[in-house]
Amino acid sequence: MNFTKMQGTGNDYIYVNCFEETVEDPAALAVKLSDRHFGIGGDGLILICPSDVADFKMRMFNADGSEGRMCGNGTRCIGKYVYDRRLTGKTELTLETLSGIKTLCLSVEDGTVKTVRVDMGAPVLRAADIPVICDTPEFVDQSVTAGDKTYRMTCVSMGNPHAVTFVEDVASLELPRIGPPLENHPMFPQRANIEFVQPVDNQTLKMRVWERGSGETLACGTGACASLVAAVFNGKCRRRARVILLGGELDIEWNEQSGRVYLTGPAEFVFDGEI
Amino acid sequence: MNFTKMQGTGNDYIYVNCFEETVEDPAALAVKLSDRHFGIGGDGLILICPSDVADFKMRMFNADGSEGRMCGNGTRCIGKYVYDRRLTGKTELTLETLSGIKTLCLSVEDGTVKTVRVDMGAPVLRAADIPVICDTPEFVDQSVTAGDKTYRMTCVSMGNPHAVTFVEDVASLELPRIGPPLENHPMFPQRANIEFVQPVDNQTLKMRVWERGSGETLACGTGACASLVAAVFNGKCRRRARVILLGGELDIEWNEQSGRVYLTGPAEFVFDGEI
Repeated sequence: MNFTKMQGTGNDYIYVNCFEETVEDPAALAVKLSDRHFGIGGDGLILICPSDVADFKMRMFNADGSEGRMCGNGTRCIGKYVYDRRLTGKTELTLETLSGIKTLCLSVEDGTVKTVRVDMGAPVLRAADIPVICDTPEFVDQSVTAGDKTYRMTCVSMGNPHAVTFVEDVASLELPRIGPPLENHPMFPQRANIEFVQPVDNQTLKMRVWERGSGETLACGTGACASLVAAVFNGKCRRRARVILLGGELDIEWNEQSGRVYLTGPAEFVFDGEI
Repeated sequence: MNFTKMQGTGNDYIYVNCFEETVEDPAALAVKLSDRHFGIGGDGLILICPSDVADFKMRMFNADGSEGRMCGNGTRCIGKYVYDRRLTGKTELTLETLSGIKTLCLSVEDGTVKTVRVDMGAPVLRAADIPVICDTPEFVDQSVTAGDKTYRMTCVSMGNPHAVTFVEDVASLELPRIGPPLENHPMFPQRANIEFVQPVDNQTLKMRVWERGSGETLACGTGACASLVAAVFNGKCRRRARVILLGGELDIEWNEQSGRVYLTGPAEFVFDGEI
C-alpha cells in the first residue's frame, strides 16, 4: 500500500489516497501503522475518499483506532494533498467530515499549496452546550480551583470543550502537573481541553495545550480557535491574531460578520512510502 | 533520498544504503529525520557503507546527532538488509563499527533472513573497567541503596556499564520512579544502564531496562547480554537463555569455550520511503 506522511503544525498523520488504494479495516490499520516503533508512526490514519455530497470525504482514525470527527490540522493537509497531487484544480473545496461539510480555501504559490484556510464554524459560548456545570449562562473569566491553585477561566466549545486561562509566561508551566486536575475537574462532565494563553500583544498569543486523553500536544487547531475567542471576550486581543504553538503558528480570525472562526496555517509533505 | 525503516525488537532506525545514496552531514540529518512528528521518526539514522577492512561498514547516529559506537539491534537489521536486498550472498559477514569489527551469522529461510546472530564479545566483570566504584575486584550480588530501597546488584560491562538486579515481577515495577536514582548512583562514575530481571525458569528471563540518558526502552541488546551473564553468575539460569523484553525476544548465549556472548534475534523491514 502506498501512503504519504504529512504534518500541520506538528500534528502528523498517515494519509492514504482511497481513489487508488482500498483499506479494508481502517480502525485496525490505524492502530498498527500509528505505532512509532513497529509501524510508520503518526497521530493516526487519514483516508482521502470520494464523496457524494462534497468534493472529497475525510475519514480519520486516531492511533487507538477510534474514528475522529474532524481535525483542523489534518484538514489542511488534505487540502494540500488533493491540489498538489492533482486530484483537483479547485482552490476552494468542500470536505465531508463526521462533523459536517467543511470549506477549505487554498493559498497557492508556484503551483503548490502554501497555506490552507479552514472554516471551523461558530464558537459555542452557552455553558450547558460546552458542557460546563455552573449557575451562569456563560462561563467567562470565572474562578476555578484545581490542585493547589486557582485560575480565571473562560470556556468555549469549537465542537469540543475548551477551557482557556491567561498566564504571564507559558514556557515556565509544568503542564503534566497542572493539566490533569483541570482536565478532570467535576465542572466538566465530558472533561475539557485546557489552553494556557500568554497574550504577547493585541494580535499575538502564545499558547500551550493540554488535550483531554492525550496530554500536552504540539498543536491543537480547535484549541487555538477557542483561545482567540476567549481572548477577544476578555479584551486581550483583536478578532484576528497569530497563535504561536509549540509545533508552529496559526492565523485565527473570528469574523465579525459571519460569526465564524477561520483557521489558516501550513501543511507539509514529509515523505512518501510503501508498506 | 531513498531510505528504509527497519526494527529489531522495537529498536527502530532509518537505514540508508550509501552504495547508492550520498549523505553529506549525517549528524544533522539524524536529528532532522529522527523527529517523530516533523521527520520520518526513529531512534536514529544508520548508514550502510563500503568498508576497507570488512564486508560492510556501519555508521550510526543517535536522534540527538551523536555518533554511536555499536547497536546489537541495528547490527541485525544491517545483516537482513544486505542479504535480502542482494548486496551480498554471504551468510557470515563482518561489519566494521566504531567498537571494532563484528561478526554476523544470518539464518535464511525461503531466501530471506529470519534471524541474525551477533558476536557481542566477552563481558567485562572487573569493577574498575565497568566502571563501578567499590572495594571488591568484582561487583556481584552486593547491596545498593537508592531512593528508599535496597537492591542486590551485579555489574557487567558489554562495552557499556550495566547493573542487573533480580526481581519477582517485572510488570509491576515503576521504572520512572526507581530508575533515575539507580542510573545516577555515585557508585557509577559514567552512570549505568539498569536491568530488572525476573527469572522465569533456568532458560528464560523476563527483563525491563532503564537506559542511561534514554529512560525505559523497548529493548536493549547489550542489556540482555549483561542480564544473562549476571544470571549465570548468580546461579539463576543456564549459559543460554531466552530473554523476553517489552519489544520482543532475544536468544542470548554466553559460550563456555570462547567466553564470548552471542545475541540472536529478529530483524524486520517496516517500510521503504523517499524523502
